[in-house]
Amino acid sequence: MKEMDKSFSISDEALHQGDFTLPGESGYEALTLELAQKWGADVIRDSDGTKLSDDIVKAGYRIYSTICIIRQHNAFAEAHPDAQQECFLSSKPVMALSSSVSIQLMDGYFREQFELNTSPESIAYWQVWDRTENALVDASAWKFRDGTVEIEGAKPYHLYTVSFLCWRIWEEINMYNHTTNNWTSEHLRQLDPRHPLAWAYLKEWLNDWCVKNPDTNVVRLTSLFYNFVWIFGDDERRKSMFTDWASYDFTVSPAALKAFEEQYGYAMTAEDFIQKGHLQPTHLPPTDHKRDWMQFIQKFVAEKAKELVEIIHAHGKQAYVFYDDSWVGLEPYGEFFSKVGFDGLIKCIFSGFECRLCAGAEVPTHEIRLHPYLFPVGLGGAPTFMEGGHPEKDAMEYWLHARRALLRQSVDRIGLGGYLHLTQGFPAFNDTIEQIGKEFRLIKALHKEGAPVTCPVKVAVLHTWGSLRSWTLSGHFHETFMHTLIHVNEALSGLPVDVKFVSFEDMGNGALKDVQVVINAGRAGDAWSGGDAWKSEKLVSTLTQFVHDGGMFLGIGEPSAVEGYSTFFRMAHVLGVDEDTGIYACHATWNYEPEDAPIHLVPESMPAQDHIRLTDPDTQVWLERDGMPQCTMHPFGKGCGVYMSGFAVTPESTRMLLDLLCLASKDAGKYLSDTWKVETAFYPASRVLAAVNETGETVTANVDLGEKKLTVSLNPYEMKTIQI
Amino acid sequence: MKEMDKSFSISDEALHQGDFTLPGESGYEALTLELAQKWGADVIRDSDGTKLSDDIVKAGYRIYSTICIIRQHNAFAEAHPDAQQECFLSSKPVMALSSSVSIQLMDGYFREQFELNTSPESIAYWQVWDRTENALVDASAWKFRDGTVEIEGAKPYHLYTVSFLCWRIWEEINMYNHTTNNWTSEHLRQLDPRHPLAWAYLKEWLNDWCVKNPDTNVVRLTSLFYNFVWIFGDDERRKSMFTDWASYDFTVSPAALKAFEEQYGYAMTAEDFIQKGHLQPTHLPPTDHKRDWMQFIQKFVAEKAKELVEIIHAHGKQAYVFYDDSWVGLEPYGEFFSKVGFDGLIKCIFSGFECRLCAGAEVPTHEIRLHPYLFPVGLGGAPTFMEGGHPEKDAMEYWLHARRALLRQSVDRIGLGGYLHLTQGFPAFNDTIEQIGKEFRLIKALHKEGAPVTCPVKVAVLHTWGSLRSWTLSGHFHETFMHTLIHVNEALSGLPVDVKFVSFEDMGNGALKDVQVVINAGRAGDAWSGGDAWKSEKLVSTLTQFVHDGGMFLGIGEPSAVEGYSTFFRMAHVLGVDEDTGIYACHATWNYEPEDAPIHLVPESMPAQDHIRLTDPDTQVWLERDGMPQCTMHPFGKGCGVYMSGFAVTPESTRMLLDLLCLASKDAGKYLSDTWKVETAFYPASRVLAAVNETGETVTANVDLGEKKLTVSLNPYEMKTIQI
Repeated sequence: MKEMDKSFSISDEALHQGDFTLPGESGYEALTLELAQKWGADVIRDSDGTKLSDDIVKAGYRIYSTICIIRQHNAFAEAHPDAQQECFLSSKPVMALSSSVSIQLMDGYFREQFELNTSPESIAYWQVWDRTENALVDASAWKFRDGTVEIEGAKPYHLYTVSFLCWRIWEEINMYNHTTNNWTSEHLRQLDPRHPLAWAYLKEWLNDWCVKNPDTNVVRLTSLFYNFVWIFGDDERRKSMFTDWASYDFTVSPAALKAFEEQYGYAMTAEDFIQKGHLQPTHLPPTDHKRDWMQFIQKFVAEKAKELVEIIHAHGKQAYVFYDDSWVGLEPYGEFFSKVGFDGLIKCIFSGFECRLCAGAEVPTHEIRLHPYLFPVGLGGAPTFMEGGHPEKDAMEYWLHARRALLRQSVDRIGLGGYLHLTQGFPAFNDTIEQIGKEFRLIKALHKEGAPVTCPVKVAVLHTWGSLRSWTLSGHFHETFMHTLIHVNEALSGLPVDVKFVSFEDMGNGALKDVQVVINAGRAGDAWSGGDAWKSEKLVSTLTQFVHDGGMFLGIGEPSAVEGYSTFFRMAHVLGVDEDTGIYACHATWNYEPEDAPIHLVPESMPAQDHIRLTDPDTQVWLERDGMPQCTMHPFGKGCGVYMSGFAVTPESTRMLLDLLCLASKDAGKYLSDTWKVETAFYPASRVLAAVNETGETVTANVDLGEKKLTVSLNPYEMKTIQI
Repeated sequence: MKEMDKSFSISDEALHQGDFTLPGESGYEALTLELAQKWGADVIRDSDGTKLSDDIVKAGYRIYSTICIIRQHNAFAEAHPDAQQECFLSSKPVMALSSSVSIQLMDGYFREQFELNTSPESIAYWQVWDRTENALVDASAWKFRDGTVEIEGAKPYHLYTVSFLCWRIWEEINMYNHTTNNWTSEHLRQLDPRHPLAWAYLKEWLNDWCVKNPDTNVVRLTSLFYNFVWIFGDDERRKSMFTDWASYDFTVSPAALKAFEEQYGYAMTAEDFIQKGHLQPTHLPPTDHKRDWMQFIQKFVAEKAKELVEIIHAHGKQAYVFYDDSWVGLEPYGEFFSKVGFDGLIKCIFSGFECRLCAGAEVPTHEIRLHPYLFPVGLGGAPTFMEGGHPEKDAMEYWLHARRALLRQSVDRIGLGGYLHLTQGFPAFNDTIEQIGKEFRLIKALHKEGAPVTCPVKVAVLHTWGSLRSWTLSGHFHETFMHTLIHVNEALSGLPVDVKFVSFEDMGNGALKDVQVVINAGRAGDAWSGGDAWKSEKLVSTLTQFVHDGGMFLGIGEPSAVEGYSTFFRMAHVLGVDEDTGIYACHATWNYEPEDAPIHLVPESMPAQDHIRLTDPDTQVWLERDGMPQCTMHPFGKGCGVYMSGFAVTPESTRMLLDLLCLASKDAGKYLSDTWKVETAFYPASRVLAAVNETGETVTANVDLGEKKLTVSLNPYEMKTIQI
């Protein structure tokens, strides 16, 4: 055994150079080239708001050029306002005090984002609802005039809403950047590629663009056509009213609705989108109509994307797609993604699960764009590249998340984005990025030799969306942290176990054949727990058999929860616990004495779930709080059910999860460290063990090599590779 | 103004003597007569397990004799085992591993309580269920033999249960007393009055008894026929499996089922009672079938009770009914109670709400039996009349609850029960009871002059059961403390406001005409919140109008909650808050700044309710915890919606509730003290103000008399009456 350090079969040059995309900036040519050198960049890109000067473009680097295809055409949009994108909105509920009620449609919405579409083909889709009794009001009972719907024959003290179509007159990312950075430039509009004139125009525009930009090697499509749903209000107390990074409400228009009806043989209505005002959050199980609509849009997006890619290829350029912003319909694990012909997928990442999402997609090149973005402010408006900011700390924090995921499965490239000049005065950041680049290249080189060893445990994460939403829920961690599953996914992203994502439908198709653990983690009724899917007796009996035959069912929060059965958790007989929604009124539960768990538990990583109770005296309570079971294990046949009230990801709880998963296997596997502070990956082809320190302290860890132990000391955040 | 003390127009003798029922005990004649003197008893009674000797019976007191009509007849029960009572039970769920599955029916149940009824007319009602898919198994697919049901054609990995009828071979109160006091006497059995031979026998027995007990003035019927549901298991870790003080599962038998079918034109099935194993807790909304069954039983109980009362009256005796134990079908606010002809109702009480329940019943005499019961142990097995016990403290604690309720509405008599000899060695207890007797007689005398003043606020408590379960939920406070409404009822029981209990059906019948506040307090789906009742648009719009016209809707916990609408709380538009069950995924809520409440709030009295959020920017947040609104007020028309996350009764929170209710009125009313430690009642006919100290400390309070203030100083727990 010897420490590899620089003696690993990767050259110094290879460690320092390549696979790095740097955001250049016109006016800062020297800085651009200096940092390109320091960070080992082989590619220079532009960003939203920056340009590359000739000096940069001609400096010998490959060039990525960013195009946001649907939003750089205000003149065309002015000339063809009906080519803009649309969406359904619902008015505020208004209470009738007499038989007449008047509803101001746009009341509460941000007028700079939305404008009523009052064309006859739009109004034909509008609906008026009595929300007090869930009843559609007949179209003959209301009239639209001057932004207002007047209803006659209303029932006093009932609440009414109007569902209507409106134009989206400000492209949402531009709107966000304007708001965040106090931009004063013209509001960019966005075109709907479904509009024939717009589509012809866009293709021609792209062709022209390619002609005019001969130095561009890669056209970096900043996503494609439809933004995730982001609805702004007119009240500062609730400016951002609705934000869902994976829902489809911004893909609708009368033209789309008509095309859908032709293809699917039935018509979608406003209520399919509005759904009592709840819209269609990705966190809730979709209706069958929504599933159809998603497929309809995915197919459309892929077809149109393919045409764009073909234009780009015709000019000898490559087409990379940036999977953020206008990503709707573009899911990398969707049915059509791999058929578009993209040459690369670029994913901006804060977390490990996003690295895995990128790494596993079926596309030639996988690139991650690291954070922080080179912007004055970062998440939630906190200072980054300005006074009070510590961009080097941010960079390291995100890198720790990414690194452990990359140790499991690498991407091909890394990069940054934003205004390069902002890095001036932050030398620690520049050093950190240099170090990150080296670590990345080392990891990539290790993977090239061969995949790392995994523990003999294959995990299936079971939810509504299955593989379509592998690793992700809807957007980034900080947008979905209130959902337990994202914590689980983030923990899993760097664990030495095989992971797959399966839907309830998959369960009928032998999805568990090679699986030892099934995880179901969510809140009752949500897409992650599964809601009505659990009404399937087939699902329940398949999983029951899976556990009875030796598997582990790991339920977190409100797993398998649905009303209407003997138990609220449909897997209660396996878990040995259930949640009392009220059905256990007057029923005593089992007294218990907590037992020692065979692994170290992290209580603070298990947010409470109320009303949990034992359904079986054999259930072992491993952890309790305020007399309520929090972590339990119930032997069931040759397998077991494990329940956790919640899961909050930390390095410590991540290791707890690994140890828990390993209980499903007789053999936990080798190459694990004896502390949660250090994670490891062993690459048998090169016989290299990589050890990473997840903490800001110096740590010494013992790693189990089977016949012997290896002791490793690591500086704060350090990664070491050791030849064995 | 002068302190009344003994100058009130109640004589010393009247203050010391009368309206008190003492439990006598044979063998302790001197003690009996001594305490009768000390406590001012006018009645002596026997108790379960005690007898009265001739010396006591002939001592010049009125005599109550306790009869538990259905359980003193083991010889008859032995001779006619089919005259015993029955119930449905459900077996444990058993998983099929092949197409055959075998279920031991009694597995888990206490064999000394239950015995299978294997008669053909019993088995005809049995059912086998596939609980995995909620499907009834055809009767041809299973066979019963030797305590076991064998199912053929089962689906592997499905769970099966059997619903079956069994005899109840040990009267439950006797069973409980045996267990609690380690009795070794014969297990008492119980007869079903529906059995013709048993009924004839019981009537004759009662007649004989009356003949043989000429000194008895009052036959104290320890309830009547059917015990509340109390199912014991065979495992010490869950001895008491199911306890519901107001449900009807112990009233069933093949004969009752047949009679029901004849009267109602349809047959009840086992599943009507078993309900997926949940049985029929009073805390959950009843099915229509259960409502029919309750009416069927109530009518039967009243008819049979009337026959018993007539026998008692024929012997010149009075019939009092003790409303506890076998009380099922006897609800004092039920349709038939007042028609039975009882001369008195005796209610054992721990709490104020039980005093109000008793005081308001339509019957000539109202008596409360105070606690502690003269038993060695009390609630939960804690010592009372034994080493370590402090019965005088217990007595005062319960009296504080009762006293404030009695100040609002008095009963006619008080009393005790149990083994009198146990009071020896507890002189402080004997003094406390003497003092309680005096305070009671003073309160009763004040009421005789005229009712106390109330604040100008009438409150309607709205729930599924309405007036049928006025004041109570199901049993005592300590059995129902986990339900918020019992805390509310207990607080209300002593507040100077008019209270009525209305059902959802009542709402259509002008129930809110004279009401200023509607309270709805419970958990989603339970009988107190209301569950599916809230699907009624009529209910929602009636209440909406009520508030819009000036009323207050006070929602606590999960008020008006039901799934399937725009909001989870159907009154969210009035409350200005809603609970996020997941439907608000991706929807931002309103930012707010907490505002000062116009009253003193008691945060610790509001247990948290998760996921509460504002639905309106005008909602005032009066209290929050961990960023979640806990107490809010939302102006709505001329009225308002007030939300509280929970309510836990204490003297302090009780005053908070009063102040909250008074917000619904322009004028809070006079005669209130300026501290929660002192409550008051003003009797205008006698111009007497009664002030009670709710605490163990000396308190000085100022009472608002309108034009002036009155200052009162009170010793710990003291009651003072002051002529104004």
